[in-house]
Amino acid sequence: MSVQQKLFFTPGPAGLFPTVQSHYEQAFREQIGSISHRSATFRKIYQHADEQLRILFQLPKETGVLFTGSATEVWERIIMNTVEHESFHLVNGSFSKKFFEFSQQLHKYAHSFQKPFGEGFDAKEVEVPAYAELICCTTNETSSGVQMRAQEIHKVKKANKDKLLVVDMVSSAPYTDLDFSLIDSAFFSVQKAFGMPAGLGVWFANEAMVEKSKRIQQHEGIVGTYHSLSSLWDNYQKFETPETPNVLSIYVLGKIAEDFNKIGVSTIRKETDRKAKALYDFAQKSDQFEIFVENESHRSATVIVLNCKENSSKVIQELESKTGMVVCAGYGKLKESQIRIANFPNVDFAQVQELIENLKKLF
Amino acid sequence: MSVQQKLFFTPGPAGLFPTVQSHYEQAFREQIGSISHRSATFRKIYQHADEQLRILFQLPKETGVLFTGSATEVWERIIMNTVEHESFHLVNGSFSKKFFEFSQQLHKYAHSFQKPFGEGFDAKEVEVPAYAELICCTTNETSSGVQMRAQEIHKVKKANKDKLLVVDMVSSAPYTDLDFSLIDSAFFSVQKAFGMPAGLGVWFANEAMVEKSKRIQQHEGIVGTYHSLSSLWDNYQKFETPETPNVLSIYVLGKIAEDFNKIGVSTIRKETDRKAKALYDFAQKSDQFEIFVENESHRSATVIVLNCKENSSKVIQELESKTGMVVCAGYGKLKESQIRIANFPNVDFAQVQELIENLKKLF
Repeated sequence: MSVQQKLFFTPGPAGLFPTVQSHYEQAFREQIGSISHRSATFRKIYQHADEQLRILFQLPKETGVLFTGSATEVWERIIMNTVEHESFHLVNGSFSKKFFEFSQQLHKYAHSFQKPFGEGFDAKEVEVPAYAELICCTTNETSSGVQMRAQEIHKVKKANKDKLLVVDMVSSAPYTDLDFSLIDSAFFSVQKAFGMPAGLGVWFANEAMVEKSKRIQQHEGIVGTYHSLSSLWDNYQKFETPETPNVLSIYVLGKIAEDFNKIGVSTIRKETDRKAKALYDFAQKSDQFEIFVENESHRSATVIVLNCKENSSKVIQELESKTGMVVCAGYGKLKESQIRIANFPNVDFAQVQELIENLKKLF
Repeated sequence: MSVQQKLFFTPGPAGLFPTVQSHYEQAFREQIGSISHRSATFRKIYQHADEQLRILFQLPKETGVLFTGSATEVWERIIMNTVEHESFHLVNGSFSKKFFEFSQQLHKYAHSFQKPFGEGFDAKEVEVPAYAELICCTTNETSSGVQMRAQEIHKVKKANKDKLLVVDMVSSAPYTDLDFSLIDSAFFSVQKAFGMPAGLGVWFANEAMVEKSKRIQQHEGIVGTYHSLSSLWDNYQKFETPETPNVLSIYVLGKIAEDFNKIGVSTIRKETDRKAKALYDFAQKSDQFEIFVENESHRSATVIVLNCKENSSKVIQELESKTGMVVCAGYGKLKESQIRIANFPNVDFAQVQELIENLKKLF
């Protein structure tokens, strides 16, 4: 493998946030890899991550911070724990579609409202089926670069207060400014905007979610074992986890959330908008690239998807070999005709400008 | 936290194997944390881990190497995927008991043969219920220091060839010399004898296991979603995983398995026996400690459990503060009256001798 360091603009696993490696080194110095997950040292690590995430996401006290192996796992756990019969899914790309399919695989009656690839949702067009217990939204579709704005998600919940609402914020946390006093649950994985190596899912869930899981159990439903919501929640009360978790990753997550808080989440959001604008402005003027998502209010700020005139594999290879910058191919069928550019905190405005100049020079 | 490095004799998370940190550093240099889990680079990492584990455990070609978030997760996945109605559990401690309880929580009819804490199993006393589809053995009980010998497990399988047999080898892999042409599945987690930070479960499963899972699906049973056996297996055919996995940990696992193969598994097993003998010999002669597991053939070689005359918390604290060596308290109710000493490859014979001398000097 090349010794020259690459700069990743990939939507996950993404480029590492600049402080990540030093946090890992510190963890090794402190022998975090060998501490007991039933020790006071571990409980302090969990508590620190909890505190920093609560600040970053403005979590109310009713909402807990739980850990799983991945965000994919959270899809499964949410359906098992909070859907007795019927779920409802806003499908605006391939990942929200998988979330919907998980519900079917778990033998629930899964409703969906599906948009063509590249189109998104506004609250006013959303009609939730009467018996749906859970509404599943994806605020940022990593596959298509479509976003559903926080304010639209909030409107859906306000119009359906009797139902639980969960938000897949995998590739937009902490950019999306969700109101956690309103929505019931959200989740992400650390290898996206937090710029960490993969292997940890972060799941915010409120007491209403836990109550629902307990009710399903009382009705003789199966909610899983060690990662049922009540098992995760009961352990969380003492800052523990049911199993031996990815301790190193929880430690580093707390440190990164702390780094983000030092920068300030509003600064991160403003910088994300500024970098996104630069990328979309570039594409608008380019004769080689074209913005994929037509409706401006549905365009993602964190995953920018562009149609390419050239074959996109060629674009990606040339960019990487000439500049060391790595962007991602389109998703699924659009692999050869699109590129996806992640706009996460690991890259700053100057680096985005450099990427734009490099893309211009390719042709 | 103290800057002075401690030496961990804890049964998990355990002390890190001496090469672990340098493998992590190499992973950071190669930017493994940012590579796509759908790339050729990742597939090579998975393939390397697969190859090295196949050598280390002498896996036949019918057996696959699958990855989960933890060994605890494997308990759940095994029950969901290979038990339609009835499972049977040999319970020789607290962890095998949890495995048994997982089956109940998943609404299976779970049979068990339970031994008093500190006692183990021989094949001749095991009678498997007629309709049990799966036999669950725990070759090494981390809670009680009881082992079930490989040859006894093999005999149980030979007497029940129509049933699937899985082995929890969490705290004894790669010490336990299982015959994988005979048994159907086994699993462990990397924070035990492999001396790695936690966050990865390793699951060996053969085609009979996968077939069973598919049959349950055909019968309209629920086998989970992304981590169903067929989903894991299908992805494994191309050295991929269903979700973004703990890539860094899979990379390091391949390197550690390679390190183990360079030492040679038979050397590791002999050294483990030699260190275990030293520890048990010491306890036998001591007037402060006493071997907990009376039956010699049921005594674990990898987790040595000793009754203490003194309060064990005091023993642990004094040992750590005076020498920097860390042993573990007893499990559950025996927390205050026992110590548990992990005998993993992270510590060599000289270090075990030093531990013994230090324990002698405490009184």
